[in-house]
Amino acid sequence: MSEFSIPGLRLGVAQAGIKHEGRDDLTLIEIAEGSSTAAVFTLNAFRAAPVVVAQRNNANQDARYILINSGNANAGTGKPGMNACEASCAAIAKLTNDVPNRVLPFSTGVIGELLPVDKIEAALPEAVSDLSEANWARAARAIMTTDTQPKLRVKTVELNGQTCRIVGMSKGSGMIQPNMATMLGFIATDAAIPASTLDGMLRAAVNLSFNQITIDGDTSTNDAVTLTATGRSDFVISPTTPDAAQVFQSALTALAKELAQDIVRDGEGATKFVAIEVSGAKSVAEADAVARTVAHSPLVKTALFASDPNWGRILAAIGRAGVKDLDVDAVSLSINGALIAENGARADSYTEQAGVAAMAPEDLLIAIDLARGNETATIWTTDLSYDYLKINAEYRT
Amino acid sequence: MSEFSIPGLRLGVAQAGIKHEGRDDLTLIEIAEGSSTAAVFTLNAFRAAPVVVAQRNNANQDARYILINSGNANAGTGKPGMNACEASCAAIAKLTNDVPNRVLPFSTGVIGELLPVDKIEAALPEAVSDLSEANWARAARAIMTTDTQPKLRVKTVELNGQTCRIVGMSKGSGMIQPNMATMLGFIATDAAIPASTLDGMLRAAVNLSFNQITIDGDTSTNDAVTLTATGRSDFVISPTTPDAAQVFQSALTALAKELAQDIVRDGEGATKFVAIEVSGAKSVAEADAVARTVAHSPLVKTALFASDPNWGRILAAIGRAGVKDLDVDAVSLSINGALIAENGARADSYTEQAGVAAMAPEDLLIAIDLARGNETATIWTTDLSYDYLKINAEYRT
Repeated sequence: MSEFSIPGLRLGVAQAGIKHEGRDDLTLIEIAEGSSTAAVFTLNAFRAAPVVVAQRNNANQDARYILINSGNANAGTGKPGMNACEASCAAIAKLTNDVPNRVLPFSTGVIGELLPVDKIEAALPEAVSDLSEANWARAARAIMTTDTQPKLRVKTVELNGQTCRIVGMSKGSGMIQPNMATMLGFIATDAAIPASTLDGMLRAAVNLSFNQITIDGDTSTNDAVTLTATGRSDFVISPTTPDAAQVFQSALTALAKELAQDIVRDGEGATKFVAIEVSGAKSVAEADAVARTVAHSPLVKTALFASDPNWGRILAAIGRAGVKDLDVDAVSLSINGALIAENGARADSYTEQAGVAAMAPEDLLIAIDLARGNETATIWTTDLSYDYLKINAEYRT
Repeated sequence: MSEFSIPGLRLGVAQAGIKHEGRDDLTLIEIAEGSSTAAVFTLNAFRAAPVVVAQRNNANQDARYILINSGNANAGTGKPGMNACEASCAAIAKLTNDVPNRVLPFSTGVIGELLPVDKIEAALPEAVSDLSEANWARAARAIMTTDTQPKLRVKTVELNGQTCRIVGMSKGSGMIQPNMATMLGFIATDAAIPASTLDGMLRAAVNLSFNQITIDGDTSTNDAVTLTATGRSDFVISPTTPDAAQVFQSALTALAKELAQDIVRDGEGATKFVAIEVSGAKSVAEADAVARTVAHSPLVKTALFASDPNWGRILAAIGRAGVKDLDVDAVSLSINGALIAENGARADSYTEQAGVAAMAPEDLLIAIDLARGNETATIWTTDLSYDYLKINAEYRT
């Protein structure tokens, strides 16, 4: 079996010509009977048609098919968009002799254009005949939009001689500030996990991974992450195997973090991968607010792009993050281990040379200590570059 | 008397060489005895030294001098920054035989560098000898940093044969999302206004002007706006002249709006002036949140830069603005009067051609109707251009 494969799961890819001709843009995942699938979705009030339908169709966590198209988000398309989405599910059901409400549809691409469901229907037989356990790598490419790299990760979990595998793929590089989920992520395992446990495991992993990244602060209308368990291995999670659950959760979270960070590293126009770590907060929410305010500041992001140790912009962002009664004289800031500011001002030991050296690497850790409590939060983000503008000013044309 | 002059107020400008040699960067405003000055300041927790000192020194609203330097914000400078600020106030007091705590200091420029107070002290005599009622235009240039245009406005107010004048100048083009105040604004009038009334009038005007603009969502450490009334005209505002107060307030608010919009039009790299008008909200806070979320969305801003009617990005931003139980099917959106979206989807009447035409002008009105209440809010903002990045990635070098 190939490195990326999960027994009980087959993937098929086809070229539907949804936005461009001649590229894989349709992915069908077939899930063996008896598997369970959990899913989390965007909290954006404008939810795309496939988000509404997938959430409804997964009520029993017994999906048989996942259908993903790239090139068109089927969002902001009203009733015609819902009809197109339902029609694509019905087309799969007809081809596979199953029922439409066991299909979970996912769309990603431009917002506001009607989904060309006829093109999807025409390409579906090709996707069905292509179904294979070995197709993860092709599928990880087929779900891409402005991504420059496919995002595919695998973990093997072992406990007491029992093993299972977790494979996941994700896509996304713009409109990234997931809220309960990210762009699109599809994770599967051959572990046996009860449906009642699966959802909580997925949410725990997503909260520590996809929900901690932001590229531009824009939350998509189509965000979704799924976790499918086929139960085809001897690795069994049940109320009587708490150790197995713990080891699996840890591997799942690690895999989700890798996939989430892959999205940041492939962020539109990104030249830096930046971890913003806030400690000494009174609450996680407070730490998170400071980290996100710094991460979203266009002035901080342009300074990161310029590798400019313009730490004053970071202090200004911290200062407007809404932390009540913040004692700015207690705040300290370091970049890649170099102490930059303390006591609300530049550190005595700081030199411009040290600042320039600290900002030079592609990977940056901005550590902010609020010194008023014990809670922490970390956000992963990128800089703001000319290429971000180029990609987003020219994306539709 | 020149068009821009207020009896009782003299301005002096000098070249202190704070950041660059050979440009006016120091402005002194002398306020006649018996005048009142109100001031509002940034809510950023990291408040620059001059903000702390100016607020303290204005406790009695009886300031005699306003001292403004550009090129250095004296923010994030800790105790040495406070000492430098106090020393600059003391230097004026010594030159003018007044007391230091009747000086209001203001600084704007790079954050985190110590204020070169010796250069200010050396240039102050030049500023004092330059004092003149006719110097507003030069002062409006001297307070600029990355601004490309001075911002200077005048209004004449008349009621029952009594007249007064309001003159104001402002500066700012980046790190703009004022919170109770904006970058720097200095307004003066020769009306007679009791100190107890002045503060409320300024706050009312600021709330409808400077607090409604945003360029990059970054709130400065140095924001401040002042309003000085010299009482040298026959226009008197008192509890027994409610009509005069109303007419004056209306003119003051209009002037403040002009100065605020001047800042947006001169926004760093701005190629568009965009009003985002949200109506049909349940509360002003809700309307404001939607307008700001749209205004800050990098994806909306890049689409504005490209004159791309990518309305899906606007809907996505509305959807993540945190409006509870938003019925997206009721939301409608128009740009410069062209109906783009309704019922949560593209309007039937919409054509791509109409969208492109609507987005072409430099001045755009994005009107969003949430259709769930009667409250409204308007935010003025800009697009996000290559030049914004260029200015902010290269500002410190």
